[in-house]
Amino acid sequence: MPTTEKNKTKKQLIREAAARLFRDKGYPATSMRDLADAVQLRASSLYNHISSKEEILKDICFGNAQRFLAVMEEVEQMEGSVTEKVMALLRLHIRTATEDLTSVTAFNDEWRHLTEPHLSEFKALRKNYEGRFQAIIEEGIRSGEFQAVEPAIALHTLFSAVRWLYDWYKPGKKITAEVLEEQVGGLLMKGLGRK
Amino acid sequence: MPTTEKNKTKKQLIREAAARLFRDKGYPATSMRDLADAVQLRASSLYNHISSKEEILKDICFGNAQRFLAVMEEVEQMEGSVTEKVMALLRLHIRTATEDLTSVTAFNDEWRHLTEPHLSEFKALRKNYEGRFQAIIEEGIRSGEFQAVEPAIALHTLFSAVRWLYDWYKPGKKITAEVLEEQVGGLLMKGLGRK
Repeated sequence: MPTTEKNKTKKQLIREAAARLFRDKGYPATSMRDLADAVQLRASSLYNHISSKEEILKDICFGNAQRFLAVMEEVEQMEGSVTEKVMALLRLHIRTATEDLTSVTAFNDEWRHLTEPHLSEFKALRKNYEGRFQAIIEEGIRSGEFQAVEPAIALHTLFSAVRWLYDWYKPGKKITAEVLEEQVGGLLMKGLGRK
Repeated sequence: MPTTEKNKTKKQLIREAAARLFRDKGYPATSMRDLADAVQLRASSLYNHISSKEEILKDICFGNAQRFLAVMEEVEQMEGSVTEKVMALLRLHIRTATEDLTSVTAFNDEWRHLTEPHLSEFKALRKNYEGRFQAIIEEGIRSGEFQAVEPAIALHTLFSAVRWLYDWYKPGKKITAEVLEEQVGGLLMKGLGRK
């Protein structure tokens, strides 16, 4: 089936509806029927867009992994201080968590429902990303830009801090997405910094 | 039924096994049968200790809420700087997340399965705790100990940062519970501080 613009949009809508259902009911309890209802399609029409619940989960997880790895690639090549690099990655995490509902599926626990070999592949991508992020933190510690913390503690504290954004953040007049990015990123970078 | 020491211990074991099952399978998918198997009891004997799955969930959620509110009470009365107060609360969060498996149920999403009126009561306790925590942060901003961030952003960033500890932290030689407490707490307090 050729991927037309309209199909793409529909597919993205399906992905988002699926992510919302996975978040609210969990992946195991979500049926193709629930999903069809959520996007107002007949179950039979839904199958024109996707072949299974697992296909959506795979799509979401690998789509997010690729996006993060692509930015990591850019950041690694970037000129600039380690502080700027980590801040660029934090912005990515914050922006993704607030703007893209599907990221919740990949960030949190639903990816555990992938079956093999996809589960191992996805874990390897996460591990790759985490290892490269930690290497940047280690560079900052060696160069004296960052405090002498355990790199793994710093890494996971940053990740965790931005992981629950979807759970409490609702865009508002006072706390816009920009304010959020500056303040959450700023607080964490100041915490990590040596000065 | 009188609460003997032995009963208490058994009950705590049941609570921990339940928390582990809720975390791994989710509350809805966990059966009393699973729980009986996990604590190596016959289902009929399990009912000598607890009357239902919901009773355990309630026990766990309200037990954790009371523990946090009791420490909040102490912290509010404490002499000392706002920085010391927030650090004392962070230590509580970190220690609880790493030492008490049942806290995961209450911190994360399983409490959503409480039924009314318990759900509303539990939400009210959480809200009360969050409000008092935020008031301490606001005091620190007013007094100039903390940066001029949005208090809600600071609050949720601290909470989130320590919420996923159970997910990545395994006590080890290098990263002991004390190192973890000092470094995670230290990073966040430095981030929040004005200097």
